[in-house]
Amino acid sequence: MRRWNGWGDDTFDKPVPDSARAFLESRLGRGEVGSDASLDSACAQVPESRLGAIAGFDTSAEARLRHAHGQSFADWAALRHGHVGPFPDAVATPATHDETRAVIDAARAAEAVVIPYGGGTSVVGHLKVIDDGRPVVSVDTSRNARLLDLDTHNHIARLGAGAAGPVVEAQLRAHGFVLGHYPQSFDYSTLGGWVVTRSAGQQSRRYGRIEQLFHGARLACAARDFEVGGQIASSAGPDLRELVLGSEGRLGIVTEAAVHVTRVAERESFHAVFFADWNAALEAARAITHAEVPVSMLRVSNEVETDTQLRIAGHESAIAWLRRYLGVRGLGDRPAMMMFGATGSRKQVYRIKADALATTRRAGGVHVGAAMGRIWAKNRFAGAYLRNGLWDAGFAVDTMETAVPWSRATATMTAMQQAAHIALDTFDERAIAFAHLSHVYDAGCSVYMTVIWRRGADYATDIGRWRALKQAVSEAIVAHGGTISHQHGVGADHAPYLAAEKSETGIALIRAALAELDPHGMMNPHKLFKDSHVD
Amino acid sequence: MRRWNGWGDDTFDKPVPDSARAFLESRLGRGEVGSDASLDSACAQVPESRLGAIAGFDTSAEARLRHAHGQSFADWAALRHGHVGPFPDAVATPATHDETRAVIDAARAAEAVVIPYGGGTSVVGHLKVIDDGRPVVSVDTSRNARLLDLDTHNHIARLGAGAAGPVVEAQLRAHGFVLGHYPQSFDYSTLGGWVVTRSAGQQSRRYGRIEQLFHGARLACAARDFEVGGQIASSAGPDLRELVLGSEGRLGIVTEAAVHVTRVAERESFHAVFFADWNAALEAARAITHAEVPVSMLRVSNEVETDTQLRIAGHESAIAWLRRYLGVRGLGDRPAMMMFGATGSRKQVYRIKADALATTRRAGGVHVGAAMGRIWAKNRFAGAYLRNGLWDAGFAVDTMETAVPWSRATATMTAMQQAAHIALDTFDERAIAFAHLSHVYDAGCSVYMTVIWRRGADYATDIGRWRALKQAVSEAIVAHGGTISHQHGVGADHAPYLAAEKSETGIALIRAALAELDPHGMMNPHKLFKDSHVD
Repeated sequence: MRRWNGWGDDTFDKPVPDSARAFLESRLGRGEVGSDASLDSACAQVPESRLGAIAGFDTSAEARLRHAHGQSFADWAALRHGHVGPFPDAVATPATHDETRAVIDAARAAEAVVIPYGGGTSVVGHLKVIDDGRPVVSVDTSRNARLLDLDTHNHIARLGAGAAGPVVEAQLRAHGFVLGHYPQSFDYSTLGGWVVTRSAGQQSRRYGRIEQLFHGARLACAARDFEVGGQIASSAGPDLRELVLGSEGRLGIVTEAAVHVTRVAERESFHAVFFADWNAALEAARAITHAEVPVSMLRVSNEVETDTQLRIAGHESAIAWLRRYLGVRGLGDRPAMMMFGATGSRKQVYRIKADALATTRRAGGVHVGAAMGRIWAKNRFAGAYLRNGLWDAGFAVDTMETAVPWSRATATMTAMQQAAHIALDTFDERAIAFAHLSHVYDAGCSVYMTVIWRRGADYATDIGRWRALKQAVSEAIVAHGGTISHQHGVGADHAPYLAAEKSETGIALIRAALAELDPHGMMNPHKLFKDSHVD
Repeated sequence: MRRWNGWGDDTFDKPVPDSARAFLESRLGRGEVGSDASLDSACAQVPESRLGAIAGFDTSAEARLRHAHGQSFADWAALRHGHVGPFPDAVATPATHDETRAVIDAARAAEAVVIPYGGGTSVVGHLKVIDDGRPVVSVDTSRNARLLDLDTHNHIARLGAGAAGPVVEAQLRAHGFVLGHYPQSFDYSTLGGWVVTRSAGQQSRRYGRIEQLFHGARLACAARDFEVGGQIASSAGPDLRELVLGSEGRLGIVTEAAVHVTRVAERESFHAVFFADWNAALEAARAITHAEVPVSMLRVSNEVETDTQLRIAGHESAIAWLRRYLGVRGLGDRPAMMMFGATGSRKQVYRIKADALATTRRAGGVHVGAAMGRIWAKNRFAGAYLRNGLWDAGFAVDTMETAVPWSRATATMTAMQQAAHIALDTFDERAIAFAHLSHVYDAGCSVYMTVIWRRGADYATDIGRWRALKQAVSEAIVAHGGTISHQHGVGADHAPYLAAEKSETGIALIRAALAELDPHGMMNPHKLFKDSHVD
């Protein structure tokens, strides 16, 4: 069953190996362990619903608790320390567009606000209940998950937008197609969630970000429905799909989405290449990109991430061998790892691999074969489980990310890491901060930082450290001209930084458009940007 | 010098060969010739300006005449028959953002409306002056054309948005880069015009449509400036660049635009392949697209277009040879021609050519070598000059276009051609209607129809035939679910059909956003959709 207070399914654990724990403790000190709040005690905190008996509205404590949060560190600390809330007043689970329409109409009649809930995987507070005096209905879309139509001639599929990654792919693969959208949250995050948060999958280089995959949608908005897109490359006026993309529930609930799909690729492999350092690997990534080698995925871990990931994986003898081998090949003891993917027909995969490896060789890269790539592919969605293991071992973890032009990648990454160290230093705590780029574009790349630090004894300690960390890193991103989010969206946590990117004028434009469909601000208010009536 | 009443430079002519004229007359009858209005007589129709002496505002008759129209058939008929007008009251030619800001401020102070004028190449009435009682200032952007910055590390260029195609490319090529945006209007159309009309270049398959090339912009809006974009792949909220793209001057004037650029390709070639018929060629185009062969360009002419283009080119002996050769190869006498482009490194071009030809061979295609491709590439922007030649020979020509899923391409094309024939038949006139697809996408392709019919003796006759034709074809496009424009935009002529695509709700969203920056509707009003105060 889904964990109520952590990541994923509660039958699957990814404990931290002893050697890794010893390493973390040597760097960070020993963290607090145990003392998690129980499900019963958390349910006991759920107050009476402000909504009376409405057909299809579940007001049970456990349903409302389970829909009161996502997976941000703030959510996580609240759950583990038993500080959850505010809670939605009811949870609805419509299975179709029409049922969703009815739920929104009932919410509007009750003067309630609506928070759409897809897979509950937001890491930036999209699902946070912000009390402005109105009752709150969480609309869980997970039952609305059917493949509604698959057009194999034009490669377009239409699905219920509550379909989670595995549900999307299983239904398409049965017909020989894939969507190809693989964020790390794939196991739970949903098609509709991907659309409204502008999600990027691990193989977006081949398949496109969700923006490129998104063909059209049907939305249930506050007081009416809205059909958007469905045209092939129109030059007729602004593309309104782009207003749905990134709307984070404020425009309405996406109930059905049409997407571009691709035939299942004949072949796929992932390859690890090591470089002397980050700069060499970064330049090789830029070279592959600018040479237009159509890799399906390209990521580069900096030296600390390469080292830490090998240590946390805990395969000591294999790692010792790898280090010796890279030493013999002249790479030194602080290498940076690149991983690239080759996906397509047999011929395409052969060419991609040959072209990418030729480029990495010229940059001094050492290919260590496809075995590490197979391990990466096998564990590509399991990394999130490590949060549970780290917490149980006494450590907190969070990730923060941006995208910048190639020329600013290193400076931005360095500033983010320094901001993390300095923020925790004010609490006399240390951090392990490391980063990778995992998405490449002609003009730049993503920068994705992971920070591990020591758990404190109580909620106030943990949330205090995290707030300082989040603010310091966000300010470093803004100062370096990066987007406040390359793949996580805005939610509540990034809202204060949105104007730096969009300008006040830009936010005014978005506000004006949203107000047209939602004049009373009932659809996921207070996310994306502050709403004036709670300022 | 630029022709005042037709396409292009008046030192360049593309007359219709005698054999072609005989062919057209045999099909359509002999058209009217001569009797064009003179520049002097047209200037004499320009009334006194409603704007007094304002610094930088040119109120001369010729400047106002030259900025009163684009290149739609309606514009063309008006110019040739001496029915031009209404006219802008003044023309301003600001060379920078700040000068544009000052022009707009002066227009606002004079309670005038502003029509941005890039290269004057609109074929759907973007530049039409629609009199609502307010004075009109045409803002000619062509002096604002400098390369402002070229970032060779991140492949981003920033230019004055009034730069026409050759000005963009010349400045970039001096540094080894290209934008790669080649609409047929390339010689005159501008970067800013491409952005606000969502232009598609002939090699958009390689370089992307302008939507993909557009990185960010600075706009001078009615009462304030607006900076948009400039981020690398942001997931933070709706992408406001997509509101600028397609805004057709209503959001403001794009004064500076940043675009993604590419190193000049090492090689490029274009290849003609003939098929037994349109269906075979269409299926081959879809196969190339779905096999992900990265051609830079792909077009397929239907049987009538293939035949007519060969006839109008007038190279009779070469054509006779080609017909014999295709006959020997078993293609019959109504072949359909595909042209594809291979652009990139030597190795890429080799692979693209080999992969595309392997696919076309499987579909029964006959490759006739690169010579026809060279001729196509040489004349790629000269086709527009044929309008002058046809008019002088007594014939009118217009083009109408859409994009649809692959499965609807043939039915849509057929319906558009039929609509053209039926519309002209009501005047007891015949039409030659033919079509091509020139842009391919995973889910579908463009359908671009050319119609040639006989000129009438006067303005009323010509405009009457054209209006019937335009309406019938537009309705056929809408009935088949196509976009009202794949590459020409909306302007005035497509505005009645926009709601079919965007929905009334969608138009309300756009209206609400535009009103935020332009509450008095002074920026190119009455384009894109009707403004209520003139309904």
